[in-house]
Amino acid sequence: MKQRVSVLGSNLSLSIEEREIPSPGPGEVLIQVKSVGVCGSDIHYFEHGRIADFVVESPLVLGHESSGVVAALGAGVEDIAVGTTVAMEPGVSCGHCHECRLGRYNLCPEVEFFATPPIDGAFCEYVVLPRDFVHPVPGHVSFDAAALLEPLSVGVWACQKAEVSLGTRVLITGCGPIGAVCALVARARGANVVAVTDINGERRAQLERLGFPTLDPTTNSLPESDVLLECSGAGAAIDQGIRALAPAATAVLIGMAPTDTVEIPVGAIQGKEIWLTGTFRYANTYPSAVELVASGRVDLDAIVSASYSLDDVEQALTHARRHPADMKVMVHP
Amino acid sequence: MKQRVSVLGSNLSLSIEEREIPSPGPGEVLIQVKSVGVCGSDIHYFEHGRIADFVVESPLVLGHESSGVVAALGAGVEDIAVGTTVAMEPGVSCGHCHECRLGRYNLCPEVEFFATPPIDGAFCEYVVLPRDFVHPVPGHVSFDAAALLEPLSVGVWACQKAEVSLGTRVLITGCGPIGAVCALVARARGANVVAVTDINGERRAQLERLGFPTLDPTTNSLPESDVLLECSGAGAAIDQGIRALAPAATAVLIGMAPTDTVEIPVGAIQGKEIWLTGTFRYANTYPSAVELVASGRVDLDAIVSASYSLDDVEQALTHARRHPADMKVMVHP
Amino acid sequence: MKQRVSVLGSNLSLSIEEREIPSPGPGEVLIQVKSVGVCGSDIHYFEHGRIADFVVESPLVLGHESSGVVAALGAGVEDIAVGTTVAMEPGVSCGHCHECRLGRYNLCPEVEFFATPPIDGAFCEYVVLPRDFVHPVPGHVSFDAAALLEPLSVGVWACQKAEVSLGTRVLITGCGPIGAVCALVARARGANVVAVTDINGERRAQLERLGFPTLDPTTNSLPESDVLLECSGAGAAIDQGIRALAPAATAVLIGMAPTDTVEIPVGAIQGKEIWLTGTFRYANTYPSAVELVASGRVDLDAIVSASYSLDDVEQALTHARRHPADMKVMVHP
Amino acid sequence: MKQRVSVLGSNLSLSIEEREIPSPGPGEVLIQVKSVGVCGSDIHYFEHGRIADFVVESPLVLGHESSGVVAALGAGVEDIAVGTTVAMEPGVSCGHCHECRLGRYNLCPEVEFFATPPIDGAFCEYVVLPRDFVHPVPGHVSFDAAALLEPLSVGVWACQKAEVSLGTRVLITGCGPIGAVCALVARARGANVVAVTDINGERRAQLERLGFPTLDPTTNSLPESDVLLECSGAGAAIDQGIRALAPAATAVLIGMAPTDTVEIPVGAIQGKEIWLTGTFRYANTYPSAVELVASGRVDLDAIVSASYSLDDVEQALTHARRHPADMKVMVHP
Repeated sequence: MKQRVSVLGSNLSLSIEEREIPSPGPGEVLIQVKSVGVCGSDIHYFEHGRIADFVVESPLVLGHESSGVVAALGAGVEDIAVGTTVAMEPGVSCGHCHECRLGRYNLCPEVEFFATPPIDGAFCEYVVLPRDFVHPVPGHVSFDAAALLEPLSVGVWACQKAEVSLGTRVLITGCGPIGAVCALVARARGANVVAVTDINGERRAQLERLGFPTLDPTTNSLPESDVLLECSGAGAAIDQGIRALAPAATAVLIGMAPTDTVEIPVGAIQGKEIWLTGTFRYANTYPSAVELVASGRVDLDAIVSASYSLDDVEQALTHARRHPADMKVMVHP
Repeated sequence: MKQRVSVLGSNLSLSIEEREIPSPGPGEVLIQVKSVGVCGSDIHYFEHGRIADFVVESPLVLGHESSGVVAALGAGVEDIAVGTTVAMEPGVSCGHCHECRLGRYNLCPEVEFFATPPIDGAFCEYVVLPRDFVHPVPGHVSFDAAALLEPLSVGVWACQKAEVSLGTRVLITGCGPIGAVCALVARARGANVVAVTDINGERRAQLERLGFPTLDPTTNSLPESDVLLECSGAGAAIDQGIRALAPAATAVLIGMAPTDTVEIPVGAIQGKEIWLTGTFRYANTYPSAVELVASGRVDLDAIVSASYSLDDVEQALTHARRHPADMKVMVHP
Repeated sequence: MKQRVSVLGSNLSLSIEEREIPSPGPGEVLIQVKSVGVCGSDIHYFEHGRIADFVVESPLVLGHESSGVVAALGAGVEDIAVGTTVAMEPGVSCGHCHECRLGRYNLCPEVEFFATPPIDGAFCEYVVLPRDFVHPVPGHVSFDAAALLEPLSVGVWACQKAEVSLGTRVLITGCGPIGAVCALVARARGANVVAVTDINGERRAQLERLGFPTLDPTTNSLPESDVLLECSGAGAAIDQGIRALAPAATAVLIGMAPTDTVEIPVGAIQGKEIWLTGTFRYANTYPSAVELVASGRVDLDAIVSASYSLDDVEQALTHARRHPADMKVMVHP
Repeated sequence: MKQRVSVLGSNLSLSIEEREIPSPGPGEVLIQVKSVGVCGSDIHYFEHGRIADFVVESPLVLGHESSGVVAALGAGVEDIAVGTTVAMEPGVSCGHCHECRLGRYNLCPEVEFFATPPIDGAFCEYVVLPRDFVHPVPGHVSFDAAALLEPLSVGVWACQKAEVSLGTRVLITGCGPIGAVCALVARARGANVVAVTDINGERRAQLERLGFPTLDPTTNSLPESDVLLECSGAGAAIDQGIRALAPAATAVLIGMAPTDTVEIPVGAIQGKEIWLTGTFRYANTYPSAVELVASGRVDLDAIVSASYSLDDVEQALTHARRHPADMKVMVHP
């Protein structure tokens, strides 16, 4: 049985290939892919062929924000039915190392993550995943929303790290899709999102549409906050955001900076005993993310801007790159 | 009744003045000062007349690592006897603000800290403190050790922030007195102090004398660690120390950097989800510190290098400045 | 200047007395009382003359859920204006003891709490409080709602202890006012309140009116939960509630049991490593509580059932005792 | 290849059987058993045929405190050498469920634990375990000490749950082997073990021999403590221990009570906001336990009282039962 797969060659051109549909092994599930979101990392691999030490040296399938329906079950899988709508958690950890045993499976050194060389992603018709990385989603949740549980997980994880809670004053820097999911999750946890900042007015307008106050950081000072969720990766945003924090506050670096080191205002960190950390993907977030969307408290369909077919992955990537104020472009295999 | 006081003029010269012995108000205690340690901050005020925004604009009494005996009691103080040996906690917080009510009294914006302009310190014969900042110490503890509960508190606080515990691999950068107290506290908490680093061999020898393994970071790579206690303030140490951390580790910046910002390896912080924070003095540490010394688990007399009288504060400061490998110089009023 | 005060005699009869209006000392605020909620403890003192070791041995003013307007300022109080609407935090802690310094001021052994013998409460026209126990409330919040920030604080504290957060499955036992505030706070923190239980159908109806699912525990099994907020004090509810908890869950005992000891299913606590604790009032909750009400996320006016004048405190207490399904009876001095 | 195995029949008689030596599957390790400690649970199964819902319905091999040497490696195991001394972690969790993914693998509902029906234990010559449950131990650690890393893990886990740290006042109820390991670990974490209690003077003498202060709780009141580690399972000890706790203290129930419910002083738990929990085995404790013993900070050989051969398991169990003051009886296959 064959499927169609969108492949990024090592020359960075995209093409459709026919490949065998994989068979689910023991404990695994075969999923027919229905919706895949385009992430900045997909665009980056397409344009530059690498992210940090991960290099596209052989053909790679992009796409890691994905949903679908269960198509077949491997041996021993009995607690999920063929036909179930599912979200796919795209990083499969080993389950045996020090980090996995401590519950920090996102830090597993053996993790195999979709669309990160040399592991293939989900711009294709069928994928196989271990059962525990396949998360059933109620039928009233759209495939797009189910796929976007992946970026939502980034927000769930960041808010959890920062212990965002009732009345927490949260400042978010960056009005892209990650800034948006952080804001949505923070609000659902009872926080006061005091501002979401971006230098781009069109992007700020997207967050305003979702009901959040925004600020242009180049012309405004930032309000005092208890938590900074930094989603831009920009040095100026990191510096300005940390300086706006209250004593004993927490800053979480979510956006990736283009450089390995960044000037950090350590005087503020020491004088106010601020905690600074960063997130690397997420762990144990899908149940909360499913709940958030299934209960209607977060509407992920509201951040979808455009959709393309599997044949048009290149257009999808190009669209996303050219329209930075469009939050999410989806591919529907 | 008069006392003799060592005063730093705004021209940065030291002289002995006669001043009135203060009277303890309600809830306060008068203490006859017996021993005061010289801290790097004392030397810095003496040499430069300022630390960050704190400027010596009028005569200032230096010295904040101090012990003595209770000389008189203010109204309402009934739970401590005249003659008791005590350590003085030198930062008096307001007890009413948001930070104080949350127990983070070191972050109180109204705190009055010894030897920080315009608050006078302890290079004198008598000081007054509120009862709850006066900590009784068993009689078998020396006045020097009681005074050094102040820097020991810095180590207690840093280890507590980093949750240093049984088997924690602790890396300490900087072999000065703060590196030493961090190492002593970490060991008392059951940690593995894997290395204390310094570029100065004489300073490393001091830590070796206390039983800790040391490393020259310019010629050695650093061992993987769960906690970094950064006591040097040097950018290279911060960078190298953070990079040596294991996933989910914690870095605590204790030493003050000479600049307000420092290049931080944010890639490592994100990729390994490291927590970075800094300490600003300490809160609620004296009971543990007293216990550590009273039980004999930490020997603070072992880090005393020299002693001077109140008339010789200038020599004491000069000695400390000229002999960076001498851990602690004491003044005995 | 005289005021009228409702006094409970040691013979447990209520009467109006004329007393001097107190003067605010340094750091204190005089407040004209506008609204006071009736709490179960007020009824208990009225009926039985004691709660545990607290005995009404001399005339006592009841009432501790109170709001009003600032009428005069003591020396040194400059950050609040006469005429401001305020909620009163009724437990004044010492600010100096071990518990206060650690931020756990509700556990201060010297705390003076309204309407707890021998400390007078707020069924009167004027009270004095230290500035930091007086919480300004925006003008659009009613006096009743401002008074009810006190019971709301109980819910804020319980949810904070239990770390109720996004998606937490919360079971609440007891449909009285404390069960209600716990449910309201849990929902505001993003939790799933899976059920609020009560054996009394009228009381369950009150929680249903607020939008929560309820259960009769005598005829239903309880759903698996991550957090139990026990607001009934009933042994059966405690036992049944703990047994319904998931592994690593938390149970918080908020309701007071009529006996000093209760049979606890320790097998479940050990086998599932459940955490059990109790709450004693609250600490540092007013800012969150004000925010919850001011932002409209919690509507405290919706739990007010009836109002009485200061002359009718006895009727107010009797009303509350006779109508257990009426959530809150208010007194308006 | 055959091995000799000590089997407890469903008639509760012990006999030696010949059984096949198992082959290590992929990721597994075959271990030649060298030392196995006798635990109270082994005695209980031998005498009563059951613990709670676990019933000896078919032949069972007892023993779960065990060490040995690596005898053979399954496919894919490359990071441990044949001949290595190892401690065996006796509870193999699934690695895939909600609890495992959160790092709480001791609460895994699918866990297979040595000597818990129907899973066989280590009173035999050879056992097979997944690689990640096999912990290498330095050669200078004795086989007995390596085996006793299992009960030591119980102490490591309890102290970790209670956050026992520098200066923590720890009260331990019960002078058996679990009380002993709790005391040893607490001391290694820098705590003040203020007392270990037992009604049996001979058992108290064992703890005194290890350097701990003891108390007869029937004739002494208990000192105020920050942590209670309850190792007796006795209702009186639980009640008395909890009442001795300071505000905000933690009580950990480690010993199993003979009944499913116990009278708990909830008034104290509420009034002092005490946290009460229990432990169910342990998770992620072996690295710390190995470190404690390998560094010489804990001497487990000092708690070994007697040794028997595999043929004499019945004598070993009988010895342990008859001499409750003998801490540990070992079996050497």
